[in-house]
Amino acid sequence: SKISEKALERHLATVKEVFPNKTDFPARHIGPRKTDVVSMLDLLGFKSLDELTNKAVPKAIQLNRDLELDEALNEHDLINRIRNIAQKNEIWRSYIGMGYHNCYVPHTILRNLFENPGWTTQYTPYQPEIAQGRLESLLNYQTLVTELTGLEVANASLLDEGTAAAEAMSLCTRHNRRKKIYLSNRLHPQTISVVKTRAVALEIEVEIGPITEANLASRELAGILIQYPDTYGEVKDFTEISKIAHKNGSLVVAATDLLALTLLRPPAEFGADVAIGTSQRLGVPLGYGGPHAGFFACRQNLVRLMPGRMIGVTRDMDGHDAYRLALQTREQHIRRDRATSNICTAQALLANMSAMYAVYHGPGGLKNIAKNIHQSALAVQTALENAGHTLSNKIFFDTLHVTPNGISVDEIRERAEQKKINFRYFNDGSVGISLDETVKTSDIEDILGVFGCKNLTDVLSEDKFLSNAIENTQYRRTSSFLTHPVFSSHHSESRMVRYMKQLENKDISLVHSMIPLGSCTMKLNSTTEMMPCSFRHFTEIHPFAPVEQAKGYHQMFRELERDLCEITGYDKISFQPNSGAQGEYAGLRAIRSYHEAQGEVNRNICLIPISAHGTNPASAQMAGMRVEPIRIRADGSIDMVHLKEKLAEHEKELSCLMITYPSTMGVFEDTVADICKLVHKHGGQVYLDGANMNAQVGLCRPGDYGSDVSHLNLHKTFCIPHGGGGPGMGPIGVKAHLAPHLPGHPVISPLDNEEHSFGVVSAAPFGSSAILPISWSYIKLMGGRGLKRATQVAILNANYMSKRLENHYKTLFKHPKTDLVAHEFILDIREFKKTANIEAVDIAKRLMDYGFHAPTMSWPVAGTLMIEPTESEDKQELDKFCEAMISIRYEIKEIEDGKWDKMTNPLKMAPHPQRQVISSEWNRPYTREQAAFPASFVKADTKMWPTVGRIDDAYGDKHLVCTCPPILPEF
Amino acid sequence: SKISEKALERHLATVKEVFPNKTDFPARHIGPRKTDVVSMLDLLGFKSLDELTNKAVPKAIQLNRDLELDEALNEHDLINRIRNIAQKNEIWRSYIGMGYHNCYVPHTILRNLFENPGWTTQYTPYQPEIAQGRLESLLNYQTLVTELTGLEVANASLLDEGTAAAEAMSLCTRHNRRKKIYLSNRLHPQTISVVKTRAVALEIEVEIGPITEANLASRELAGILIQYPDTYGEVKDFTEISKIAHKNGSLVVAATDLLALTLLRPPAEFGADVAIGTSQRLGVPLGYGGPHAGFFACRQNLVRLMPGRMIGVTRDMDGHDAYRLALQTREQHIRRDRATSNICTAQALLANMSAMYAVYHGPGGLKNIAKNIHQSALAVQTALENAGHTLSNKIFFDTLHVTPNGISVDEIRERAEQKKINFRYFNDGSVGISLDETVKTSDIEDILGVFGCKNLTDVLSEDKFLSNAIENTQYRRTSSFLTHPVFSSHHSESRMVRYMKQLENKDISLVHSMIPLGSCTMKLNSTTEMMPCSFRHFTEIHPFAPVEQAKGYHQMFRELERDLCEITGYDKISFQPNSGAQGEYAGLRAIRSYHEAQGEVNRNICLIPISAHGTNPASAQMAGMRVEPIRIRADGSIDMVHLKEKLAEHEKELSCLMITYPSTMGVFEDTVADICKLVHKHGGQVYLDGANMNAQVGLCRPGDYGSDVSHLNLHKTFCIPHGGGGPGMGPIGVKAHLAPHLPGHPVISPLDNEEHSFGVVSAAPFGSSAILPISWSYIKLMGGRGLKRATQVAILNANYMSKRLENHYKTLFKHPKTDLVAHEFILDIREFKKTANIEAVDIAKRLMDYGFHAPTMSWPVAGTLMIEPTESEDKQELDKFCEAMISIRYEIKEIEDGKWDKMTNPLKMAPHPQRQVISSEWNRPYTREQAAFPASFVKADTKMWPTVGRIDDAYGDKHLVCTCPPILPEF
Ligand SMILES: Cc1ncc(COP(=O)(O)O)c(C=O)c1O
Ligand SMILES: Cc1ncc(COP(=O)(O)O)c(C=O)c1O
Ligand SMILES: O=C([O-])O
Repeated sequence: SKISEKALERHLATVKEVFPNKTDFPARHIGPRKTDVVSMLDLLGFKSLDELTNKAVPKAIQLNRDLELDEALNEHDLINRIRNIAQKNEIWRSYIGMGYHNCYVPHTILRNLFENPGWTTQYTPYQPEIAQGRLESLLNYQTLVTELTGLEVANASLLDEGTAAAEAMSLCTRHNRRKKIYLSNRLHPQTISVVKTRAVALEIEVEIGPITEANLASRELAGILIQYPDTYGEVKDFTEISKIAHKNGSLVVAATDLLALTLLRPPAEFGADVAIGTSQRLGVPLGYGGPHAGFFACRQNLVRLMPGRMIGVTRDMDGHDAYRLALQTREQHIRRDRATSNICTAQALLANMSAMYAVYHGPGGLKNIAKNIHQSALAVQTALENAGHTLSNKIFFDTLHVTPNGISVDEIRERAEQKKINFRYFNDGSVGISLDETVKTSDIEDILGVFGCKNLTDVLSEDKFLSNAIENTQYRRTSSFLTHPVFSSHHSESRMVRYMKQLENKDISLVHSMIPLGSCTMKLNSTTEMMPCSFRHFTEIHPFAPVEQAKGYHQMFRELERDLCEITGYDKISFQPNSGAQGEYAGLRAIRSYHEAQGEVNRNICLIPISAHGTNPASAQMAGMRVEPIRIRADGSIDMVHLKEKLAEHEKELSCLMITYPSTMGVFEDTVADICKLVHKHGGQVYLDGANMNAQVGLCRPGDYGSDVSHLNLHKTFCIPHGGGGPGMGPIGVKAHLAPHLPGHPVISPLDNEEHSFGVVSAAPFGSSAILPISWSYIKLMGGRGLKRATQVAILNANYMSKRLENHYKTLFKHPKTDLVAHEFILDIREFKKTANIEAVDIAKRLMDYGFHAPTMSWPVAGTLMIEPTESEDKQELDKFCEAMISIRYEIKEIEDGKWDKMTNPLKMAPHPQRQVISSEWNRPYTREQAAFPASFVKADTKMWPTVGRIDDAYGDKHLVCTCPPILPEF
Repeated sequence: SKISEKALERHLATVKEVFPNKTDFPARHIGPRKTDVVSMLDLLGFKSLDELTNKAVPKAIQLNRDLELDEALNEHDLINRIRNIAQKNEIWRSYIGMGYHNCYVPHTILRNLFENPGWTTQYTPYQPEIAQGRLESLLNYQTLVTELTGLEVANASLLDEGTAAAEAMSLCTRHNRRKKIYLSNRLHPQTISVVKTRAVALEIEVEIGPITEANLASRELAGILIQYPDTYGEVKDFTEISKIAHKNGSLVVAATDLLALTLLRPPAEFGADVAIGTSQRLGVPLGYGGPHAGFFACRQNLVRLMPGRMIGVTRDMDGHDAYRLALQTREQHIRRDRATSNICTAQALLANMSAMYAVYHGPGGLKNIAKNIHQSALAVQTALENAGHTLSNKIFFDTLHVTPNGISVDEIRERAEQKKINFRYFNDGSVGISLDETVKTSDIEDILGVFGCKNLTDVLSEDKFLSNAIENTQYRRTSSFLTHPVFSSHHSESRMVRYMKQLENKDISLVHSMIPLGSCTMKLNSTTEMMPCSFRHFTEIHPFAPVEQAKGYHQMFRELERDLCEITGYDKISFQPNSGAQGEYAGLRAIRSYHEAQGEVNRNICLIPISAHGTNPASAQMAGMRVEPIRIRADGSIDMVHLKEKLAEHEKELSCLMITYPSTMGVFEDTVADICKLVHKHGGQVYLDGANMNAQVGLCRPGDYGSDVSHLNLHKTFCIPHGGGGPGMGPIGVKAHLAPHLPGHPVISPLDNEEHSFGVVSAAPFGSSAILPISWSYIKLMGGRGLKRATQVAILNANYMSKRLENHYKTLFKHPKTDLVAHEFILDIREFKKTANIEAVDIAKRLMDYGFHAPTMSWPVAGTLMIEPTESEDKQELDKFCEAMISIRYEIKEIEDGKWDKMTNPLKMAPHPQRQVISSEWNRPYTREQAAFPASFVKADTKMWPTVGRIDDAYGDKHLVCTCPPILPEF
């Protein structure tokens, strides 16, 4: 009835007024207070945020309605809600293996590293002087990987085992320029899928079969991929085949298990050239598939072909040892479509967790853990054999392959289910059992019970069961490992906590000050968003557990998918890509697959503006496309004339255009919808790089104005912390026509129908599922209005800073009509090279003395700095940063005026670590105070110091050292 | 049968060997590695730990058997076990009030402060130069309390509301030397109990009744205690009665609620001289009663009578503002049995949580929260009245007092129980309902449902319900509060995180280096032990919830009691005392009660060696005993001759002897058992101060060698972190004959029978229950053997250090025969005063330059340093500390040799903050490097800096400022 409706309305209105939302999360997430927003808008000449963004965002693409999302939840209700969802997941004991093993995460590492924003909110260590802590830890990771595999060099993480294998394949073909590889049929199925998928696009031929049948003598094979121990658990000797491979010019790649290698002869010793795998079981939870670090090691002679980031040892300007990212010349920004790989965001945080796990346990501890698992497996094997079952593995580490006798596999499965145990069930009726660090005697007895065996006592009393142990065979490890003192100095918890704290405190993260890296969106990563990542109902689920056990995850996926579709205007999301670059690759492959399904097999040209992020051309290349660069105009916008020319020229072969919006120049181009139309008219698809979604959420939607597919860097706009270089998530949103072409999976399919899927991009079906609650939470906490306001303030903050700096620095690109930037902007500092010999790097380093992390340096335009404040920084922080920049401008002036020498001045000699300014010797033309406390807000009691002087990159490039260097004892 | 028994044995043996305990917690907790232990023993001339401790601990008292405790659990099993126990607690909605209110703990404070060892493992800020962070936060707390109450000064926390009230009573009697007080009968019952209990011993007469009936005109009342709002929830005007009180020379104490005061006229404005209460509801969980901070504020003229620690503003040697503990001359060590109070460990961590809650919400946020609660209460009141119930409160904040009509209280209780709601049920059939920050519309509707009311809509639509609001009455607050910028600058989460991190990083805690404070036992506080403190099944329980809802807590209490009895040799534990000093007080009261029950009412002499901790005489005085100091001999041991004299002299009045064992001199005296016998022979009881249990666990038991009662500082030996000055727990163990005399409680009794209880010492029946899982976990993780080894290594570590330092410093006391110390030792540095003008404080400050926290300074002997390494520090850390001490000795030598002036040298001018060593001006006779990097292990990249120069205490004492000083904007 009318009356009751009115009453209800009134009720709701009054209740809201009387009981307002108790904690207003958007006001916690968004930095500037309401009064600040007013004064900032005032400076820019606007009356409201709406007025600003209505002007900034082109009319043609504006959303003009509220996002239809759930009402925002407060932080405490949010936690209740996500806890209830998590608890729909069932924690079973999973002995499935296949590269995923349960393990004990040391609580001190969990709390002091994984749950610590000092570690999680760091950026990739591109600025080594304020990143020595995580660089040291990542170097520990590389040392861990090299020493266990026996190979000379390793990188500091890839995304997972599957992509590491694909990268290895790619390395082989680059090395010997052959176009065929051979895969052992005893690799994990998901590894085979990922490699095969990659190979198709690169036109690499793949053969799969027993490794003994590889036709090495043909001298056509770039490499062979074997697994050690293999997916069935068997350990085989590959010495002979490696010799033959090498004789025939092929490389040998071993997928392997770092924990097993504490007992097993390392791959390098039987001839492997490359070793890959995952370090998940070293202290990183299962997390329904991720995140965890993939590893990659190779022989020294292959190092320049190795993908990913590598930490190296170099020295600083005073000659002190220092760490840094080595061989950055391989990065995609420089090599573009000739880059080794498209990997950008990796898994730094998880690599650090595994490195710390190794530091905490040390070589002896790791070996003990491995022995325990191994002996458990030996006991189970013996009991099963005694009971008459057939076991196929002779030598094994932790995994058994059983063909049951006298009992059906259905019966086994039923009994196992009663005990909440997951095994691996092969199609042929055999069963895989993979044991792990957490397996207790009672677990073993349950396993034996399922198989109808006698109890453990009898087995153990037979003693024989140890005769089969690795240590009694030729496979045993004889070489030592982890001999560096760092792996034997921190075994008490007090030492471990202090070591982690010492490293943490060397590095700038968001707990110190803003990190204004353009294109990186270093916004608040709220505690509330992070909390669910530690819920055991999220962490303790195996990715290949039956989906009925993962109902909570799937509900969360569905809700997040719905929300992301509403935000972007797409129809479907794939959560498989676990980085932005992976998303690009997956999206381009979907486009290709779509064209092929239309019979348009020749469409393989990808147009990319030259201002695009380096991963774009690198991904296009990997997707088998030919990249055609599109020029940009002096104002930073796409050169429409050139674009049209290229569209016309390649009409028949046009696959797609890859653009970034707002552009990487920080501008909302008016033409974006027109461009999309044009591309479509020429039969192409539009890939819109979603890195800049933070300028769009709630204001405009790529799916509305013509894009067909985008990746969403959840580690930018959607609050997954950067982790010092990952984890990230790069799910892709697509319009309906591309949906059938999304990634599938050989074990657990994310699709209703795999028929049109182009293949598989990650080892896990839903990528790094365990961090998706972060983005889910962010959206639920902000609600539609909160999200929109965040975007508006992100745009306000950027324009405010650009305005505040305009008398001192030139913002390179602004919208020609509105004179506004989007959510980031580029300062041109090229003139100072001429007037004062000052380059972008000098300003970047000098900012450290002011307590700030540098903006993005020399990208997308050489000799510039790109600043992205994000909405989470408040006015005071923005003002401080502007003061620093202005103060630096005055310093440049001193050089221009000849007061300071062009080489000996506070900029060229920046940053200034304590060692320099506390030295008795000081013969510089500026004071110690000018060096270290250059602004009134840089205070001695709160200053964040660079811990080394300016890094000497040239020296490091000449003397490549990528494992822990010998250290001198402290005294 | 024989055979199967054998098989079982064999089974167990083999299983253990094949599957060794996966994580060996004792090896994480105990610092030195096995090989280090061997070399350290070697230096001391021992072959094994047993050999060492058999010699160190007097034969007569050795335990000579293993502790009978559960087999040690590994860290992951431990968490499963305690989680299961926790889940036996039921989380109901508690609207009981009585000083305990549910609240939202901001997640960012929870994780970055409460769960952060950088905040939890700090010691009380006695060394201000390395404690400016928490001093600032505690000053914020004081500002919060003063501004909300309107009074001029506040301390930085007491233990709870009950003891704060008792301290207030005591202040009144000290102020006007009257011996009678009047309590409103509308105070919380537990407050009345605690005050009455205290009063009895101090021979203060207590009258209780309607406040209007206080006979002020008699001019006999020291003070009156009122509650505002009172325990029924009513707000009354005390202006008139305060005037009369003051006219008659009585003080007015108001128990109050800080959150209510954001809306209500502050107590100072109606004439209160003192305000007390708890700040629990400001961001600290219920935790079944604690921990949370009690507050205490008073007028300026009473400041020197105020109990507890107060932060003050002073300046450093360079004239810069700096914080420090003010008025330390009031501490018990100086005033002993004339001390204002015995409070020592307080609730710093919880005060910091509440201070941060206020910083995060700001004045507007707090007011909003309060308004929300108030309006909810108004709505409920209106609905209940409309439904015909009788409500007694006219003006109220959050609490209603209902006499139900037309429905029985049994019916109400039943319906409430169905909805899992706890109300307060009065004996007269009326019901109390206290609303809090977490109450939602749906909760209100449930409450109304229970009382059979119409739904909320109808109430709200009547509008009238707001007419009764505080803001429409004379009670409304008109004065502003929290106007200092710190309360309005950190409202975004980014700012809040950075503020907390900035403060954290100024302070030395166990995450940096050892804190060798003698008598304080700053050992590892493991993450695993801390994790259960965040379990919501522990945090979200109201202390007065029916015990059936707290089954998990009670299981944990029982298990911990059993374990502590086995460890100490006592028969019964009381968990009520929430600090060591509270334990002393409770133990002494139990002794008195016991004597009285024997008819020996005159036994009130307490013998205390002059070396005892200052809390001992202070507690004895509070327990109504007369303290007789016992002399000690030159070797530090008790002067037996003097003791015997005193025993003889006071045979009839002897109540007890209080001793510390091993002695506060760090020595295992042989005579302890004899002393206990002697005391008993003279009719006295023995109180053994349990602060030094860390030297005894697993080796000897006070209950075995003659002690009758001890407190156990769980925040020392049993791993509760010190929290920068609390929380702690000081449960007492007693022999059976004292058990009937333990503390009781008026709401939830911890005793089977309260008949012989001496009274109540804390507001909550089981003290700070929520941190007991820490000690429970420690014991379960270590097991009997682990605990014993910990003690042995604690003794080894102390003896090792004493040995390493012996050529440089004299250890003042050692056992005369064995030449060994116990778990701590005293370095005599008095000679340097003569030879080099160097005092203990100079060495303490100089140690900061080496990155260390000072040992205990000038206690128990003036001019000494007492070092307690604990078992958690490894050899490398001990060596580093010794190197620092030796290096300092060489520095002293330079002064002795005349190389450095007696005033201008690195010790006298220590510590050296950055401001000094980075100054262009440097005209000291030593270098900057000598100042800041005095040893090779002090490195520029990891150095922990003092943030101010040497504190000027004299200046601070002259210019007492105890609230946030005005700050200058940053630029
Ligand atoms: C514009 C743009 N595209 C793509 C990427 C690649 O994303 P990811 O690092 O997650 O692989 C980035 C990363 O910074 C980016 O800024
Ligand atoms: C020997 C001794 N007794 C008693 C106490 C008082 O304990 P609490 O600080 O917990 O009140 C201490 C505290 O340091 C102590 O060292
Ligand atoms: O990581 C980036 O290349 O932005």
